[in-house]
Amino acid sequence: MEKKLTILDIARLSGVGKSTVSRVLNQDPKVNAQTRARVESVIAQHGFVPSKSARAMRSQSQQVVGIVVSRLDSSSENQAVRGMLETLYQRGYDAVLMESKFSPAKVSEHLAVLERRGVDGIILFAFNDLDYAAMAPLREKLVLMARERPGFSSVCFDDDGAVRAVLAHLGERGLTEVAYLGVERSDLTTGLRRHQAYLDYCREQGRTPRSALGDLGLQSGYRLAAELLTPTTQAMVCASDTLAIGAAKYLQEQGRTDILVSGLGSNPMLTFLFANTLSLDFGYKDAGILAARQLLDQIEEGQPPRATIAPCQPL
Amino acid sequence: MEKKLTILDIARLSGVGKSTVSRVLNQDPKVNAQTRARVESVIAQHGFVPSKSARAMRSQSQQVVGIVVSRLDSSSENQAVRGMLETLYQRGYDAVLMESKFSPAKVSEHLAVLERRGVDGIILFAFNDLDYAAMAPLREKLVLMARERPGFSSVCFDDDGAVRAVLAHLGERGLTEVAYLGVERSDLTTGLRRHQAYLDYCREQGRTPRSALGDLGLQSGYRLAAELLTPTTQAMVCASDTLAIGAAKYLQEQGRTDILVSGLGSNPMLTFLFANTLSLDFGYKDAGILAARQLLDQIEEGQPPRATIAPCQPL
Repeated sequence: MEKKLTILDIARLSGVGKSTVSRVLNQDPKVNAQTRARVESVIAQHGFVPSKSARAMRSQSQQVVGIVVSRLDSSSENQAVRGMLETLYQRGYDAVLMESKFSPAKVSEHLAVLERRGVDGIILFAFNDLDYAAMAPLREKLVLMARERPGFSSVCFDDDGAVRAVLAHLGERGLTEVAYLGVERSDLTTGLRRHQAYLDYCREQGRTPRSALGDLGLQSGYRLAAELLTPTTQAMVCASDTLAIGAAKYLQEQGRTDILVSGLGSNPMLTFLFANTLSLDFGYKDAGILAARQLLDQIEEGQPPRATIAPCQPL
Repeated sequence: MEKKLTILDIARLSGVGKSTVSRVLNQDPKVNAQTRARVESVIAQHGFVPSKSARAMRSQSQQVVGIVVSRLDSSSENQAVRGMLETLYQRGYDAVLMESKFSPAKVSEHLAVLERRGVDGIILFAFNDLDYAAMAPLREKLVLMARERPGFSSVCFDDDGAVRAVLAHLGERGLTEVAYLGVERSDLTTGLRRHQAYLDYCREQGRTPRSALGDLGLQSGYRLAAELLTPTTQAMVCASDTLAIGAAKYLQEQGRTDILVSGLGSNPMLTFLFANTLSLDFGYKDAGILAARQLLDQIEEGQPPRATIAPCQPL
């Protein structure tokens, strides 16, 4: 006697995804005729009957995804959220939005509410000191943004690749006296990873690094530029566009507009305001699209969590 | 024989809101003992029995509010949304977020989805050319942001008051040669209303207005400043901080940092980058809080739609 098949077995035998099988079972008109015929023939052949509880679970889905941003006024997160919303909306999902303001306690609270509401999935903009143990039961329906974590699904920005792309570009332009303005290394991505990429690059090139770290504000960029400037400085690479704007202002005041200032994040203000500047586009929106797709692959197709690094745009 | 009482009658007789009566009926522990006793005594006295359908409707509430923003990357809308989320969250509601990108068709589509989902209420960042006739059935559970409309509930920013506050402040500083950089009057609020406030103020003060209108971008501010600058200009009042940044850059290049540039919106970049500038805080976050409260008053207490103008912050 044949062993009882699951919906996943039917999907594999038909060469389609789990969600397509679901759609066939639920008589969704959006499945094309050929696919429907193939799935139905596999079902007929193997005598598959969906369990009552599976059908009930399926129909209980609200098609809602929770998105927990760290700050509503973060330009990078907004770009990513825009990509997520477009993707989710196209696939028939809506998004509930919450803001954590970098508080691990608020994250826990928001996740508990989303759980109680029975949302289908969650995208969380992660940061330091989150309680990953408490999140473990959510793993299958969770995607972390901007932080990876063993066992969890994630989409990270390419911090290392972005800083290296900028440094390589400056190298091609013959600039070798390149200082780095960064963020404290307690911040894993904007802080540690970007700074480390600069240090590694200098070592590989046999150069002496010259860097200083501060907070994320405009004033910090201004102050760090003052700290690092020497008569021979040719370029300043900054961990963010905000720092770059602060630095460019200082250099303008000092009459040192010969120094190239680079930022990260593609803020139009930097290049509009200051002539000798450039900014690398991190591809935040595309990263948001990737994250939404990855989440839907998990919750609709049963794919396992995976760690993705979203590529940055070429300079 | 007594006429059958509604839940609203019980609320009035008890001197509490409709939602408090609901909470007492649903044995919500958050109602304080004294209030509960008062409501229960009124109920006992008048023999009120909630109708089955009213109870069913009440329990069907998902405590979800839809927010339709025009652009996710709008700093002013983000500030307002932050105020909304905080207020809704405190009151036990979550928010589903959608983006219209200023497309009336997208607004219709989003509203239809929110309706199908049975959300409790909707806050819509409104703009030109919306189909208000189609929205009429939603009136009781809808609040418009940034546009008022007869019969609809709304929270508007004080465009007229903000421009007048800036002009009065410049007057106190003895500046009378004041040009205005604005946005096309096809935009009702940032365009028409702010420009009109400037024209009215000039007429009242017996001054000759000097203004030019363009789009919302940085380049537009730069270009309009070039167009309006005269040897005697003392100040430039701009319809937005973005325009003000563009204008300040032009004036810096011309060596005319004697001219004061004012923006609207409290963007920290303007005052950080340019010395002789100021920006009036529109109070966007407070306006968001007002809108959320107004919506909850409508859907929980049955209050009628009303038009509110959120005050701007003093300079």
